[in-house]
Amino acid sequence: MGRLYIGLVHYPVKGRYGETIATALTGLDIHDIARSAKTFGVHRFYVITPLRSQQEIAQRIVRYWLDQKGVDPTHRAEALETVEVVESLEESLERLEREAGQKPLLVGTSARVYPERPQISYRELRRRVEEAPDSVYILFGTGWGLADEVIRRVDFMLPPIRGVGEYNHLSVRAAAAIILDRLRGRCEGDDEAR
Amino acid sequence: MGRLYIGLVHYPVKGRYGETIATALTGLDIHDIARSAKTFGVHRFYVITPLRSQQEIAQRIVRYWLDQKGVDPTHRAEALETVEVVESLEESLERLEREAGQKPLLVGTSARVYPERPQISYRELRRRVEEAPDSVYILFGTGWGLADEVIRRVDFMLPPIRGVGEYNHLSVRAAAAIILDRLRGRCEGDDEAR
Repeated sequence: MGRLYIGLVHYPVKGRYGETIATALTGLDIHDIARSAKTFGVHRFYVITPLRSQQEIAQRIVRYWLDQKGVDPTHRAEALETVEVVESLEESLERLEREAGQKPLLVGTSARVYPERPQISYRELRRRVEEAPDSVYILFGTGWGLADEVIRRVDFMLPPIRGVGEYNHLSVRAAAAIILDRLRGRCEGDDEAR
Repeated sequence: MGRLYIGLVHYPVKGRYGETIATALTGLDIHDIARSAKTFGVHRFYVITPLRSQQEIAQRIVRYWLDQKGVDPTHRAEALETVEVVESLEESLERLEREAGQKPLLVGTSARVYPERPQISYRELRRRVEEAPDSVYILFGTGWGLADEVIRRVDFMLPPIRGVGEYNHLSVRAAAAIILDRLRGRCEGDDEAR
């Protein structure tokens, strides 16, 4: 039975000029994306950073809130329990495969189209998540997006989120929330998915 | 021709025990929600707080980034141009009606259902936003959600966003992103809305 996993990549990602960089952790990314992950039934949320000091900050945030379990009225512990801090995409894949007993379908996200890479529609990925023959692992890039070496590695890319007009500079927190809703969201009182 | 407006309410909202409170501004709310607003074609984003010091903080954030226009590679100015800081829901309604030349359809959001209030589906509200006979003004509450006096005032409530299971503690930033996507979102390369 497949499960849904997500990863927030701090390295390797693109910098402003397309160069490969490691970005710094944003504390609120962990909180917000963990809450969205928990809401939409994500099994595990990997926070990926190679920098030891950054791993420690992330661990400290998670531990602090896990200690507040049952006391904190905002229920952050339940969300942060999904977080695992790892040093590389490789390490997250190893842990995921060990846990799931299978290779996941690896899916990338971007604000731009990569015409040379296979694309999967939200509808089709939703179906695969629901029927769950595979585990699905969705990657989100910080900075200016996932580095090309990651894009080359994924099985599929999801199409960019478009709104109205040309502006598409969503925060990674907003993009992750929207994508999880498109794959798993429902409305109270609706029988239908949307 | 109707337009889409949103408001982030810091007063009157619910506190932890259901009491009416004013919450403090979160800088990242303004950034994130402005970027989502700009992406999804929101005409104006009202930041509502009665506290003078908080209004000044919000104004300072907006002015700082507007000054970076053309220099800042993250295009925050374009998003923050949608922001107007006002002291009350009343003031936002007056400004909106002056600008739009009509009363808007006032729509509330919440993580819970209010069975005694009229509800509108995402599908139906999307249709009304697209056909745009009216301007639509959607309110988001900080803290523990919009106070009852606001809930009683809206024309319709949107249903809560549901994921998988019982956990539904999305951040207001994530909820706003998801709701705007449900009303206005498209996928690159799709002819269809979803």
